Order: sequence, then structure tokens, then C-alpha cells
Amino acid sequence: MPHSPLDLAQALIRCPSVTPEEGGALDLLGRILAEAGFAVERPVFSEAGTPDIHNLYARIGTAGPCLLLAGHTDVVPPGETGAWRHEPFAGDVADGILYGRGAVDMKGGLACLLAATLDLLAARGPAFGGSIAFLITGDEEGPAVNGTVKLLTWARARGEHFDHCLLGEPTNPSRLGEMIKIGRRGSLTGKITVHGRQGHVAYPHRAENPIPGMLRLASALVAEPIDGGTAHFDASNLEFTTIDVGNAATNVIPADARAVFNIRFNEGWSAETLGAEIRRRLEVAAGNTVRYTLDLQPSNAPAFLTRPDAFVDLVAGAIEAETGLRPELSTTGGTSDARFIKDACPVVEFGLVGETMHQVDERVPVADLERLTAIYRRVLEAYFPAGASGASPSA
Amino acid sequence: MPHSPLDLAQALIRCPSVTPEEGGALDLLGRILAEAGFAVERPVFSEAGTPDIHNLYARIGTAGPCLLLAGHTDVVPPGETGAWRHEPFAGDVADGILYGRGAVDMKGGLACLLAATLDLLAARGPAFGGSIAFLITGDEEGPAVNGTVKLLTWARARGEHFDHCLLGEPTNPSRLGEMIKIGRRGSLTGKITVHGRQGHVAYPHRAENPIPGMLRLASALVAEPIDGGTAHFDASNLEFTTIDVGNAATNVIPADARAVFNIRFNEGWSAETLGAEIRRRLEVAAGNTVRYTLDLQPSNAPAFLTRPDAFVDLVAGAIEAETGLRPELSTTGGTSDARFIKDACPVVEFGLVGETMHQVDERVPVADLERLTAIYRRVLEAYFPAGASGASPSA
Ligand SMILES: [Zn+2]
Ligand SMILES: [Zn+2]
Repeated sequence: MPHSPLDLAQALIRCPSVTPEEGGALDLLGRILAEAGFAVERPVFSEAGTPDIHNLYARIGTAGPCLLLAGHTDVVPPGETGAWRHEPFAGDVADGILYGRGAVDMKGGLACLLAATLDLLAARGPAFGGSIAFLITGDEEGPAVNGTVKLLTWARARGEHFDHCLLGEPTNPSRLGEMIKIGRRGSLTGKITVHGRQGHVAYPHRAENPIPGMLRLASALVAEPIDGGTAHFDASNLEFTTIDVGNAATNVIPADARAVFNIRFNEGWSAETLGAEIRRRLEVAAGNTVRYTLDLQPSNAPAFLTRPDAFVDLVAGAIEAETGLRPELSTTGGTSDARFIKDACPVVEFGLVGETMHQVDERVPVADLERLTAIYRRVLEAYFPAGASGASPSA
Repeated sequence: MPHSPLDLAQALIRCPSVTPEEGGALDLLGRILAEAGFAVERPVFSEAGTPDIHNLYARIGTAGPCLLLAGHTDVVPPGETGAWRHEPFAGDVADGILYGRGAVDMKGGLACLLAATLDLLAARGPAFGGSIAFLITGDEEGPAVNGTVKLLTWARARGEHFDHCLLGEPTNPSRLGEMIKIGRRGSLTGKITVHGRQGHVAYPHRAENPIPGMLRLASALVAEPIDGGTAHFDASNLEFTTIDVGNAATNVIPADARAVFNIRFNEGWSAETLGAEIRRRLEVAAGNTVRYTLDLQPSNAPAFLTRPDAFVDLVAGAIEAETGLRPELSTTGGTSDARFIKDACPVVEFGLVGETMHQVDERVPVADLERLTAIYRRVLEAYFPAGASGASPSA
């Protein structure tokens, strides 16, 4: 049964797995992996207040090293369906381009991981010199509560051990081969409320306007950069996402003002040390005059870095051999499930070009699917060298 | 027919004239004035988008000088009715205190103006040496579109001329006799919109966060006082009344931010010169980096001052004779219909103690009603000296 990455990507796109719907995508994946000899498990996780989520764990082989291939089948909603040149769940190909929701994030990448694995098994048989595990969730685009984080706990409880992980999220800004992600910045969200006293604008001395205090606190947080960056990370960055008072009366001084900020921070900080720095800046700015509360939301997105090592070199080498580009080792962009996987084993992310992800007309050149499959195939062959057995590249 | 100020105030409070409802209050007033010999007119004004408003104009006498007595019968809503110690429209008296919506703003003051006038006419007859006109609207607490401003235009078209005006709004902060208002600050409202470009917080270089720009512009407007005040006016004062972005997504940089401010300004500025100063400050703060729009709302509330003169002295003298207090000549507080009347003739405001106006349990000591009536009676007697005829005090 030949499985081209295009066939697989089209079949996956035709499963309408808009988060949190399974949409048949994990069923399809499970069927193909089972046919290929994988032992397939389909744990469903639930938690009050969040939707039940279907997940997939599949492994072939019992020997080490075990390479984990990770990803998700859920996709963001198509948005304005009528604005698409091709139906978002049709998987149409036009002029060598595959269109569809998930084409790059990340049904396309998943199809390439699967096609490369099937190739390896077809060429080498089940005794390829180690184990391969697929860890695929339907909850990456949603709250990420019943997905990868619980799947890893579940696998650990079964005694599963992973040596390295390759996560197939889109990582290239504009050209396949440009960028590997070897870490991600952390994310911390905070809410400031400045408390005042309502009154009439004509009698300001009888009221206490919270807005000048908010201007002072918010300005203090954006006045100075948080840090200057590190060897592998950009400078940490704070963005205010909203400021709201909600007072429609132009003759009324409002009672309070609220603002929310989000910080993407590098490995120089933990959520705790960064929280302390934010508190310090606010205290200085507030002095004795601004009454405020700071509500730092608990962060499940720490900064992390997979230090460049033999596995990173192996992936970079496969990319360079196939594309001629030496990929940048980057830690930019948003969070991904790598923030959870990094506690189980070193994780490297490499996938398609992310330019159109989450947009109308999400799309990928068929040539990119073929080239990414070839890169992944090189990674597998280097990770499981022919004739070797039980030797991980960094061991 | 004796009309004590308490009787009149109670009768007016019992008319539920919550703005824009007439509630029977102007009918009552008109009946009493007609009985006393006034020619009473009841113009109703309307304008698309605003409620029809009942008004009253009444005059006795044709000779000069003509003293205008002005006010309003509409009241603000009672708010939480159950929180009142006495029904807001019952006009109950307990322990020498009259309770009710409008007790001080300004059915109480109106009752005193009326009682003093009836006293004068009872003592001196219709040939008291001039004319008295009542100009009473039902649209002071509402949009103020179909009230005093149109009533003055209507009166001017009829050839009415006024020499001075006494407006019976509450003017005393805590004690009857403390404060006359001889002017009011102007009011100017502006809206700032800072334009940015929406994006993801993890990719700030692809977006343009409008919030730091808003912090810069808003801070520039509150950083320096607008002026230092003048001989008769406090410093002009700017208050931000709201800042809003309305972005609920903590991972999204918003597209724009809006803020509204209101300035209460003194006679050193017109709405035009002040608008130019605001534009100048924003230009300096914005430099080439902040893209914004400023929307200055047309202001119908200019700053104005009735220069202390013989009429102001006459009112102050009446207050001092009755209370022993030399009233402060003030220009503080919110706007009132005096901003319209000042174009027809010099206007002075003096009334009850405003402490409980617009609040639950609005109330006035019966003794204050009697004393205010006595003050107004002294004003009328000094304005129309016995035996004199046709001589206004400033003429
Ligand atoms: Zn993704
Ligand atoms: Zn009033």
C-alpha cells in the first residue's frame, strides 16, 4: 500500500477535525499505523469545564533508542469559508499547491512524518534498530489541557521512555530548511487593576481618577526592555493586550481601570523570577499614590532550550543535505506542545513553512511535502543507522 | 392664598417630573403665577432624536428693569427607591427636614423664588417698580436641547429684554450663604484613537501595538497642568474618563485603542484655543511614531464670568444681611443653564445647599427654605426699591 505524503495530507485534511473535534483524523492515522505494525492506543482525556479529547499513542519496536514523533491533528476553524479559493476541507490541489485547513499546521507535517516512517519500515522491516513512537493529540489548538500533557503522563505511567523527540510543527518563516526550533520562549500573563473612587469630572478633588495611575504603571512596564536576550533567545518582550475602563459617561470619573499584558520571556527567567521583577517595577512606579492589584496568571509555558547537541546536528544535517540550507537554530515564535515534551526528552521542532497557517487559503506546495518527507527519512536513517542496534546518536 | 416655601416645595416634589416628564410641575407653577397676575406661556419644543419638552415663561409688568428668575422643574431619577428613608415623591417632612427628589435641585429653590415673588406682590402690588419674569424649563437634567436655550431664543423673538438674572440652582457646598456662583467653567470633551496593526504577541515585529502610543499621548495630556487658574477661576482641569481596547485574547496585539477625556476650563480659554493647545501637546508627544486621530466634540459649554458689579453686590448683600456670611464669589462646579442665559443678561446663581443633590435621601431643612425665601425677598426689595421706578441697580 503506497502512501505518498500528498495522499496522506489530503486524507487528513478531508477529516474536519476543527478543535476539539476528532473528525476522523486520529481514526485514519491509527488505521494506517496499525497496518504498518504499530501497537495503537487511543486514550480519551477529560476534565470538568473542558471538552473530552481524543488522542493517539502508537509504538513500534521495544528496543532503544526510541524516537518520538509528535504532533496534532486538530486545526483552527476555517474562518470565512466563502473567502477560500478552495474548500477548506476538500484537499484540492491546483498548480502543484495543496489547499486546506491544516495544510501546514500540521496535517501536512504529520503526513510527512508518517510517509517517512512507512518508507523506513518498508525498506528495513520492523528490526530497524530501535523504536518509533507517535504521540498525537487533538488538543493543541484548544486549551491544551487534555492533550499532550496528559498523554505524556499516561505514557510515563506505562513505563514508556523516549530518547529524543521530533515535533512536526511548521517552523520555517518563508522557505523550507531555514529554521529549526530548539526551544521556545515562556509566556506569562498579568492583569493590573488600578483602584480609584468614582465622582463627577467637575469635582475631581472629591473623586480619585484611576486612569493617571494606570498610565504610570503601564508606562513603567514598557519603559525599559526586560532584558537584552541571550545566546539562543531574543530579548524578552512585554505587550499590553488591552486596557479597559468601560465608562460611557463623559462627565464621570470612573472607579477603576484594568489592563492585561503578556510577556514572552527567555531562559533567563522563570515565571516566578519574572513575576518578582514585574512586582518590583510596579511598586517603584506606584509609590504611595497608586492603589492597584496585580493578578499574575499561573503559567504552564516556561521558557526552555534544547542545547545544541548531536541530535540537533543530526536534524540540521538532514535538512542541509536535502535543501542546501544550514537551518538557523531558533527559539522565536509562540508556544507549542514542545513546552510539555521537553520534560520527557530533548525535543527539536522542524516542519513546513508556516506563512499561511491559521489563515484563509492555508496551503503548501506538493514539492515541499515531498522534500520534508525526504528530510524526515534522512533523520530516521541517521537516527537508526543500518546495521547498528540500540545506539542513540547522543548516547 | 398664603404660599409658604414649604407648601410650594412639597407640592412641586409631589409632581413626578423625572426628566423629560413634565409631571404636572409646570402646570402647578403656571396656575400659581397666573393667579398672581403673571401672563403665562407654555412653549413646547421638540427636535428629532430628543424628547418633546414642556417649558414655562411668565412675566408680570412691562416697565424696566426686568429681573429674570430662572430654573428647572425636571429632576434626575430617584435611583434605588427602596433605599430612601422617605418616598422620593412624597414630600415628607421629618424633624424639620423636607425629603424628596428635587428638594435642593431645584424644586426647593424654585419654591423660594416663587414664595419671595408672591410676598413682594402681596406687599407692593403689581406696580412694584419693574418687571419680573420666570423662565423655567423641564430639560436641564436631560440633553438641555429643548429647554433654556430655545426658551431664550423664543423670548428674544417676542422682544423680551432682561436686565439681570437670578438662577436658583443649589450653590452652597455645606451651609446656606457660603457661595454665589458668578460664572462657570467651560466643558470640552475629546476622544483619542491610536491606530496600530493587529497581530500575535509572539510576533510583535509583524504587528504594531497601539497601547504604548496611547500611554504616551494620554500621559502627555496629564503631565502638565493646563493653566494656573485666574483671579476668579480655578485652574483648568483635564480628566480621562475612559480608555478602552476591548481585546479579550491575551495572545493578540490589538488594532487600536480609544480614550476619552473631559476638560473643565476657565475664562483663559475658548473651546477653540484650548482645542489648539491639546492638538499641540499631542503632536509633540506623537512625534513621527504614533498614528492617532483626535475627535474634539463641539462644546456648547463655554467658560463665562459675570464680573462682580452692583447686581452681584446686591445679591451678596442680601445673603450677608440674612445669614451673617459674606458669600464667596465662585466659578466652581459643573455647568448649568447659566451658560445659555449669560448671552441674554448678567446672571448670578444662588440657591440651597447642594450636598444631597442627585443622591438618595435628597433633603433640605425647612429653615433653609425659609431663610432662602427671605434672602430672595431682600434681593427683590433691593432690586425694586420702594418708591423708585425703572432704575436697575447697575444702570
Ligand atoms: Zn500547530
Ligand atoms: Zn439643577
